[in-house]
Amino acid sequence: MEQSAKTIHERSIVIDGLIISNWGEDVFKAMHAAGLTAANCTCSVWEDFQGTVDNLVRWNGWFRDFSGYILKAESVADIRRAKDQGKTAIILGMQNTSAFEDQIGYVEVLRTLGVRIAQMTYNTQNWVGSGCYESTDGGLSDFGRDVVAEMNRVGMLCDLSHVGPKTSRDVIDASSRPVAYSHCLPAALKSHPRNKSDEELRYIVDKGGFVGVTMFPPFLEKGINSNVDDYISAIDYVINLVGEGSVGIGTDFTEGYGTDFFNWITHDKGFGRQLTKFGEIVNPEGIREIRDFPNLAVAMERAGWNAKKIENVLGLNWLALLETVWSSRM
Amino acid sequence: MEQSAKTIHERSIVIDGLIISNWGEDVFKAMHAAGLTAANCTCSVWEDFQGTVDNLVRWNGWFRDFSGYILKAESVADIRRAKDQGKTAIILGMQNTSAFEDQIGYVEVLRTLGVRIAQMTYNTQNWVGSGCYESTDGGLSDFGRDVVAEMNRVGMLCDLSHVGPKTSRDVIDASSRPVAYSHCLPAALKSHPRNKSDEELRYIVDKGGFVGVTMFPPFLEKGINSNVDDYISAIDYVINLVGEGSVGIGTDFTEGYGTDFFNWITHDKGFGRQLTKFGEIVNPEGIREIRDFPNLAVAMERAGWNAKKIENVLGLNWLALLETVWSSRM
Repeated sequence: MEQSAKTIHERSIVIDGLIISNWGEDVFKAMHAAGLTAANCTCSVWEDFQGTVDNLVRWNGWFRDFSGYILKAESVADIRRAKDQGKTAIILGMQNTSAFEDQIGYVEVLRTLGVRIAQMTYNTQNWVGSGCYESTDGGLSDFGRDVVAEMNRVGMLCDLSHVGPKTSRDVIDASSRPVAYSHCLPAALKSHPRNKSDEELRYIVDKGGFVGVTMFPPFLEKGINSNVDDYISAIDYVINLVGEGSVGIGTDFTEGYGTDFFNWITHDKGFGRQLTKFGEIVNPEGIREIRDFPNLAVAMERAGWNAKKIENVLGLNWLALLETVWSSRM
Repeated sequence: MEQSAKTIHERSIVIDGLIISNWGEDVFKAMHAAGLTAANCTCSVWEDFQGTVDNLVRWNGWFRDFSGYILKAESVADIRRAKDQGKTAIILGMQNTSAFEDQIGYVEVLRTLGVRIAQMTYNTQNWVGSGCYESTDGGLSDFGRDVVAEMNRVGMLCDLSHVGPKTSRDVIDASSRPVAYSHCLPAALKSHPRNKSDEELRYIVDKGGFVGVTMFPPFLEKGINSNVDDYISAIDYVINLVGEGSVGIGTDFTEGYGTDFFNWITHDKGFGRQLTKFGEIVNPEGIREIRDFPNLAVAMERAGWNAKKIENVLGLNWLALLETVWSSRM
């Protein structure tokens, strides 16, 4: 690792906008060793309210058992505290609003229990709107509008990564707070239902929103033959489109998971129709595992980025967004 | 109202250890008008976890809609703040551990959502132990021991009012924090499954615990022909037994409820076998409604109580207990 990049990584607030890994000691150790300051960690995908609470109960145990590595991020101050203490702040995020069920009051309940980010839909239609793998997208439902307003009120980030195009646009328009694609790639580099067009990327940022760029192989131009420089190059594509201040990292690390997990996330509600086939998942060379996180700054420097741009994209941009969105109006 | 009693009531922290009324604007207005500083307000009786969360969602709405009258008590500091602001602090309490279901992790979840008191059983047996209307009481289950330990850890008061005698004794022995009968009467004055023997009252206080005295007519010696002086006299009976420092109020006001409610609470799990028949419910003359609360100090003075004794029993004793129990070890 080059010295300057290493120094930048070490002093930076490093935030990963999306990790969905096999939670437990191994992953927490890896995040800690990687110098990750904070990460949006998925605590619900297809689960209903009580299933999600059961996941949060497991998180409560992990926060107690692994307090040497992780702490619970309920505010931006907690993220700064994690940096000071050399720990990783866990931002509890849901990749679906299935946990809200049909009860608007569950938004506040789940926020009280620690959830700070929720993706409006996961791949398919729910009470709120439509997903990126649905054949049609009728847009945000009226209940969905209530959910957006309630998320705005309590201070919970609306994530649109796996959301359908019309529903995404409706959420961007309806939300009084900035919203995000926490982990996506440009469709201009590879056509895929999960990737976003230049127009979509511009639209969210024009409205004050944010783009986290993923490196999940099926959505990358070169697939599993990509390397970390290809990832930085995809990030640069987005930055050239929307500017340096509204872009961050959103790796989508699926560390520690096997076939059962990928089958579960690629079938509707876990066990329904197959929505997509990912094939083999091998992350880009150089950023294959969570522990490789420090290589990002090296590759950014290799791509000619200056220190300020590296620090912004590694974490400060995410931090500013979360500060804006999480301030509660309850 | 005599002047000195009126002054004592107004300056005192007045805490009711148990109200189960038809929650809404009328009851909140009445508590506020009564000068009630805080009350343990029942938010779960037979409900399971999600049913209880649904009740808490309604409370979240009431805290927003009626913030001129009530606030949520999550700490003793909140109770003091209520006194300063002339509001009633709502202590969310469950009269059952049915909301914990068979999941020890739900104790912490419900505490995070605001629950600060839980009665171990409500009249009949559950996962934790046995109730006062069960034909046999096998005592605290092993899961029940886990629940007591977890309530101790997170800082949640164990209430034993409707709990069976053996289970009560087991909880008193198992708990590392003081526990309470939040609302009971002495069996020496009237024999009833809900009333506690002198030995039981002494035992809980000997172990650092607490007795809130109720005035629910079916458990009073003179039933619906009682008056507020009879209630004070019952309190005095308990004080003579266990001392002035461990006794408080626990009215069990059921204001605004009709037959359906009483049928629901007197049948197992709401709709099972009938456990008891209350007959007509008319609270003691002089303390018939929540708004009559200031009459308690008057009756206490009439009974020859000095100002210190009145203040202690009206609220300071409860406050000291809650301060001890709620300090979190999480």
